[in-house]
Amino acid sequence: MTKWVYTFGDGKAEGRAGDRNLLGGKGANLAEMCSLELPVPPGFTLTTEVCTAYYANHRSYPEGLNEQVAAAVTHIENLIGCKFGDPENPLLVSVRSGARASMPGMMDTVLNLGLNDRTVQGLAKKSGNERFAYDSYRRFIQMYSDVVLDVDHHHFEELLELKKADAGVEQDTELTAEQLKELVREYKEKVLQEHGQPFPDNVGNQLWGAIGAVLKSWMNPRAITYRKMYDIPESWGTAVNIQAMVFGNMGQDCATGVAFTRDPSTGEKLFFGEYLVNAQGEDVVAGIRTPQQITLEGKKRNGSDLPAMEEVMPVVYQELVKIYERLEQHYKDMQDIEFTVQNNKLWMLQTRTGKRTAKAALRIATDMVKEGLITKDVAVSRIDPAALDQLLHPMLDPNAPRELIANGLPASPGAAGGTVVFTAEEAEEAAAQKKKVVLVRIETSPEDIHGMHAAQGILTARGGMTSHAAVVARGMGKPCVCGAGGIQISYEKQEMRCGDRVIKRGDFITLNGATGEVFLGEVPTIQPELSGEFATVMSWADEIRRMNVRTNAETPEDCRTAVRFGAEGVGLCRTEHMFFDAERIIAVREMIVAETEQGRRKAINKVLPYQREDFVEIFRIMEDRPVTIRLLDPPLHEFLPRTEEDMKEVAEAAGVDIATVEHRAHQLKEENPMLGHRGCRLGISYPEIYEMQVRGILEAAILVSKELGRDVRPEIMVPLVMHRKELEILRALIEKTAEDVQKSESHKIPYLIGTMVELPRAALRAGEIAELAEFFSFGTNDLTQTTLGISRDDAGNFLEYYTQKGILEKDPFVTLDTEGVGELIQIAAERGRNTRDDLKLGICGEHGGNPASIDFCESVGLNYVSCSPYRVPVARLAAAQAALKYKQAASSAKTKAA
Amino acid sequence: MTKWVYTFGDGKAEGRAGDRNLLGGKGANLAEMCSLELPVPPGFTLTTEVCTAYYANHRSYPEGLNEQVAAAVTHIENLIGCKFGDPENPLLVSVRSGARASMPGMMDTVLNLGLNDRTVQGLAKKSGNERFAYDSYRRFIQMYSDVVLDVDHHHFEELLELKKADAGVEQDTELTAEQLKELVREYKEKVLQEHGQPFPDNVGNQLWGAIGAVLKSWMNPRAITYRKMYDIPESWGTAVNIQAMVFGNMGQDCATGVAFTRDPSTGEKLFFGEYLVNAQGEDVVAGIRTPQQITLEGKKRNGSDLPAMEEVMPVVYQELVKIYERLEQHYKDMQDIEFTVQNNKLWMLQTRTGKRTAKAALRIATDMVKEGLITKDVAVSRIDPAALDQLLHPMLDPNAPRELIANGLPASPGAAGGTVVFTAEEAEEAAAQKKKVVLVRIETSPEDIHGMHAAQGILTARGGMTSHAAVVARGMGKPCVCGAGGIQISYEKQEMRCGDRVIKRGDFITLNGATGEVFLGEVPTIQPELSGEFATVMSWADEIRRMNVRTNAETPEDCRTAVRFGAEGVGLCRTEHMFFDAERIIAVREMIVAETEQGRRKAINKVLPYQREDFVEIFRIMEDRPVTIRLLDPPLHEFLPRTEEDMKEVAEAAGVDIATVEHRAHQLKEENPMLGHRGCRLGISYPEIYEMQVRGILEAAILVSKELGRDVRPEIMVPLVMHRKELEILRALIEKTAEDVQKSESHKIPYLIGTMVELPRAALRAGEIAELAEFFSFGTNDLTQTTLGISRDDAGNFLEYYTQKGILEKDPFVTLDTEGVGELIQIAAERGRNTRDDLKLGICGEHGGNPASIDFCESVGLNYVSCSPYRVPVARLAAAQAALKYKQAASSAKTKAA
Repeated sequence: MTKWVYTFGDGKAEGRAGDRNLLGGKGANLAEMCSLELPVPPGFTLTTEVCTAYYANHRSYPEGLNEQVAAAVTHIENLIGCKFGDPENPLLVSVRSGARASMPGMMDTVLNLGLNDRTVQGLAKKSGNERFAYDSYRRFIQMYSDVVLDVDHHHFEELLELKKADAGVEQDTELTAEQLKELVREYKEKVLQEHGQPFPDNVGNQLWGAIGAVLKSWMNPRAITYRKMYDIPESWGTAVNIQAMVFGNMGQDCATGVAFTRDPSTGEKLFFGEYLVNAQGEDVVAGIRTPQQITLEGKKRNGSDLPAMEEVMPVVYQELVKIYERLEQHYKDMQDIEFTVQNNKLWMLQTRTGKRTAKAALRIATDMVKEGLITKDVAVSRIDPAALDQLLHPMLDPNAPRELIANGLPASPGAAGGTVVFTAEEAEEAAAQKKKVVLVRIETSPEDIHGMHAAQGILTARGGMTSHAAVVARGMGKPCVCGAGGIQISYEKQEMRCGDRVIKRGDFITLNGATGEVFLGEVPTIQPELSGEFATVMSWADEIRRMNVRTNAETPEDCRTAVRFGAEGVGLCRTEHMFFDAERIIAVREMIVAETEQGRRKAINKVLPYQREDFVEIFRIMEDRPVTIRLLDPPLHEFLPRTEEDMKEVAEAAGVDIATVEHRAHQLKEENPMLGHRGCRLGISYPEIYEMQVRGILEAAILVSKELGRDVRPEIMVPLVMHRKELEILRALIEKTAEDVQKSESHKIPYLIGTMVELPRAALRAGEIAELAEFFSFGTNDLTQTTLGISRDDAGNFLEYYTQKGILEKDPFVTLDTEGVGELIQIAAERGRNTRDDLKLGICGEHGGNPASIDFCESVGLNYVSCSPYRVPVARLAAAQAALKYKQAASSAKTKAA
Repeated sequence: MTKWVYTFGDGKAEGRAGDRNLLGGKGANLAEMCSLELPVPPGFTLTTEVCTAYYANHRSYPEGLNEQVAAAVTHIENLIGCKFGDPENPLLVSVRSGARASMPGMMDTVLNLGLNDRTVQGLAKKSGNERFAYDSYRRFIQMYSDVVLDVDHHHFEELLELKKADAGVEQDTELTAEQLKELVREYKEKVLQEHGQPFPDNVGNQLWGAIGAVLKSWMNPRAITYRKMYDIPESWGTAVNIQAMVFGNMGQDCATGVAFTRDPSTGEKLFFGEYLVNAQGEDVVAGIRTPQQITLEGKKRNGSDLPAMEEVMPVVYQELVKIYERLEQHYKDMQDIEFTVQNNKLWMLQTRTGKRTAKAALRIATDMVKEGLITKDVAVSRIDPAALDQLLHPMLDPNAPRELIANGLPASPGAAGGTVVFTAEEAEEAAAQKKKVVLVRIETSPEDIHGMHAAQGILTARGGMTSHAAVVARGMGKPCVCGAGGIQISYEKQEMRCGDRVIKRGDFITLNGATGEVFLGEVPTIQPELSGEFATVMSWADEIRRMNVRTNAETPEDCRTAVRFGAEGVGLCRTEHMFFDAERIIAVREMIVAETEQGRRKAINKVLPYQREDFVEIFRIMEDRPVTIRLLDPPLHEFLPRTEEDMKEVAEAAGVDIATVEHRAHQLKEENPMLGHRGCRLGISYPEIYEMQVRGILEAAILVSKELGRDVRPEIMVPLVMHRKELEILRALIEKTAEDVQKSESHKIPYLIGTMVELPRAALRAGEIAELAEFFSFGTNDLTQTTLGISRDDAGNFLEYYTQKGILEKDPFVTLDTEGVGELIQIAAERGRNTRDDLKLGICGEHGGNPASIDFCESVGLNYVSCSPYRVPVARLAAAQAALKYKQAASSAKTKAA
């Protein structure tokens, strides 16, 4: 028989802190505190497996659960010496959810369960406090009805307010027993009226109703949303904790409170919390009464004039201090605790690792290392890499007023304000005049890059987290809100509509790229400081990690940012954006419309000096760090003129008529450009383009190497290879060109030739492709698109359904699909290395900055990850954590084997 | 030391017929004939490995070749008793190419090599025939200069013509020795003038020049084109055969000829061939003189008045008959032989398996089985499945005159003539009036289907072998020429231009879908008869094959055709084309623009009766054969109206304004529709569509089952699955709908639920997907697109470069890429069957009718292949051949293991 129920109480427990997966966080920690002989009301935990079985089995309970719950109730009764449902000496219990990962407030709780018209009298008699008994009873009815019977709590709040008004009192503590009795009657009438059935008075029914409600709350919309936000799998399920009630609402020697063992926003080592006298736990959170500070220091800092617990209940306070110190020492981490004081006796109801800001996390981790509480490894593994983002971008002043006008996707973090412009050109002009603008587009294309660069931030109405705007903006570290579906942009009218509001060109807006919010007017921002703790933790991470961290960067500015953030090279320097510059684009277009190789050569050679200059600047910044440069990748039509005027310009430059340009544009149009004439297919059909690029790279590399007095390290990358022969042809072309340049410059330079692995066929044929490649870089954006058959540009129309229905737990363009795409990476890594021992393996898709994906990269032994400049610290930390994880896994496997 | 050279002569040979890969066809068969003690002039063969090494090593010869050739020349000298380059007693040789597969006339040959101003005199003296010696010399100079020195043969032909005119003779045999001597002088002057250097007189240089020329001819454009046409890999290389000359041009007791042991166009058992007296081999082919029949029967049948060899040289003729019978018995196949008679002595110069028409192949195979010469297995394995196409479609009368106006791709075989129309509507109208039309479009879309159906044939200016037009036309068995780049179509002017010629609407054209030719006017066609031999061979194939053969069909007509051709079920019934019918499309569009589920349901339910009726007709035809029906696959925007008028119509039908329709159309537009909102993604987001389809299928199945008195066998197929959960959701939907229908119809029907495997992720995750699928059908069109990252719509722009440069030897949309796509199929098959023993596996991409791909399907153990109706016999035969091949491979592996 499966063990569904674990009991705890009286210094003993069937579970322990390590059983979090089975008992949930709350249950495991209750058991642990019990074993530590801390004062914990006895109780028991229904395991998360109950929840899983419940959902697997069309919402019905597994066999044996009924009996095990009955036995566990008896266990409490025996320890407490009272009986569930007994009219003389009733046991009351709380029923609470408790998932593996903390999901505060997301799921449901019922307190004071076990009360009915008979037991309430027993409670009154036993406690000698009729008012307390009926206060508990009305609380129970309110909470139970809301949670289990779906009678909204506002009904009860209204009745309570009326009652207080009738009684002429302000606080609910001021209501008398008699008034509370009336309230109970009124509550029950309301339940009958709203629910259609009387409030259940059988305590067994009450208990199972509450258990069912907690299990159901795992699937409430709040919980689903929360899980999605924090990447918590639905399959984990929640545990249910049933525990004897202790009462903070029995009188003035009673209280309830929550506290953090250190300051969760700054990390300062300062006990910190709030409590309420004569109250139950929910009151603190609900904000019905103003909570009081626990410590005198807290009282001082908050300028509170309410008495602190430290002064009101000094003995209990001292006990609490001892307990929190014990807990922090025991758990070796900052704790978030809940307690209740019943008649001056302290009871611990919860302890858990406290949530904290990124800043606090860094401070706490470094402090605890100094205190000798944890090792550097532990400190590094404690910081959430994703949270670092908060620290790296300017942020909106949290205290400034603001007016929200739209919501989109948080595509690139940071805050940005400026006047609205609708074209890249205007953005650029404004920037030239030192004006701040926000570029607003329905969606962006490569032609908008210069405008995006010039703008403070980017707002688009269409496109997801990996749309062009999002990717480029993150690359630039530029705040961006994408896919704000609620706004309607009219380029013609030069305005956007957000609901009824019309924002005209020139109006000021502010974006919060970390939340996806758009505000009207200017919201002041503050520059985050990178604390010494940040540097310390990063240096520890650098000591630990095995993988290198490079950056995806193609402008000098990006490269400088990335180096500042610790990038050890460039993993992906795209070359196409360099083609869009106003001075160059005409020559590029001239090349595209040329009908002969000679014509193309003539045009493309005009681009050479620019391209060389680009590389020179990048090499100067990156010095002897490796720089992977990808040869031209996008389909040529992306460069083609769209407007009549542009077409004319190109026709003139190329010396052809406009019809030829139009014809060529039509010829190049593709049904599915993602699968079209792009990548190395361009290099095969127009070798002169790649030749020019290789020449630019080598000439620049030699020039800068001579300047530096040591060699820079270009790595030339061929995109979209699917067949060994493609690389054979292009490798020969690269080598020949490189040889020519080296000969004419009389300088040899070490360079590598490699390929992107971004097509399933390339992954499968990696063994033979590696014969010709010194490195593979996994282009996981494209590899995801082809492996899953999803265009990320078009995914918006259905991916939503997919996450809603739980088909995909995470957006595969954000978090690597390790089962599908991951297997191909693994296959490619193995086959590639079988051919070539020292094959260098890296990842340069968007996933290179995603911690879960970095974890995967470590697991398959890649040499480096590459990500946008602002993600570099995130990647350094995530790489260190992954290294720790797999080192531990390996050493524990060793232990097991031995 | 590698053995580069194999000798033969005097009843002995180092090689044999089985050494074709090493010695080429000609070399291997010369060796074999020698071993059979047939009269073969002695000689030697440079292996194909020489050719491979030559190209691998920048066109230089491998080490040791020089010495081995010298030794082999000595070998000939010893056998013949004369010496290469000896002025008194010169050895002359022929130098010929000889690839593994016969490539008639594609590569170069040099005869009479070893002649110069000195040896010619020796030859004259030795033969006592000065005229012959100089005739040989002038032939040698002409041939050698053309082949080796690049001096075009027309120069020599002109000089020869002049000489004959001067001499007042008509035949070159009438020129005297003296005149030939003059001609030799003139030839040599011409060489000096054109080549810039004198004709080489060193016989060693001559020999190596000829060897080099033969090797180089492997890469001449003719040879490359031929290889492409016949799927001969470039890597095979050619052998070079050097053989002592025998002379058919020594006088009236000399001759040269070619013959087939049976009639290559009808297969009739009739020795058949042509010869010329006093001539060399090339003369027969060149057509300078009218060749004579070898047999009296041939003379009679051809109405020739020239004497037959049977009467002129009866003794030699009898010897030839004995030899050809011996060869046919030995090789057990129809032979194509070449011989020379020198002074009444017969010499065999070549034997090879004779090329034949499909008709002849069937006749010969069945005859030889009757004669006891070969088994049924051998007979079946001898027929080229691809050639069957010739037999299945009406064909142009080969004897009718014709005027070629354009060339395109041979997209769908068969001949078709009609007046030109430019719209599907016109085609339909014309068909209603029983007029024959050819539908001419720049490219076709699903909206053109009805017009394609109504037309005799389809001609497009754009699109490849797997373009929409091509695929649909092949499916319909409708002749089609695609991608005729030379024509320019103006819909506006209702005309097409082919060069200077303007074809107006209403002009008559004729297509040859088997060659891609377009002719002006009507070229008469003939209906092929399916002979009894065809049925016989197909029945043998059916006994042998392991795999079932199904068809891709979606109309009753297609189904009927396929059943007639032996289809054992439907492997792919697309349902989207059913949506395009004029009556239905409005309801479909109404559904697409509906904003609510209710609105969609209302519209889609209008389609239900039509859809059910479609299935009813198909089930009636297919009876209890399995019918795999694919639920809706293409992105919704394909169904959307494009013209203003259509939009208006939809807006009215749906009761919305035209702006809503436009907006929705814009919303649905996709960057990469291939990777967009299609396949089961539609079923996930709009379950009501799939529900309607499943209802239609089940209702139809039950109706027809009741009619038939036995159950039809629907197999419901979910397209584009990438994740187990998609199928989980849709399987539940299908089962629920099926249950509803079965309940309300009170009839249970056995049906299967399965999925297309057409995304790499589906192949990789096949293990878990198979938990929910009773069958997999490999959608190799899409799987090729995603695995290789190539859109077949856009591949035209670069695939040409790819085949030119040898990156892809075959179009991966025609012949399965077994290395990449194939590995995924193999993985999916293995993992799927690990989960589910009896998982049914099939293929329904275009590859299902391609013999090489069918071979692959057999090798991985698929249960069936499915192809367009007209390919069904091809597939039956190819499946049988594959079964034979792998049975042999297995049994030979067993033998080896034993």
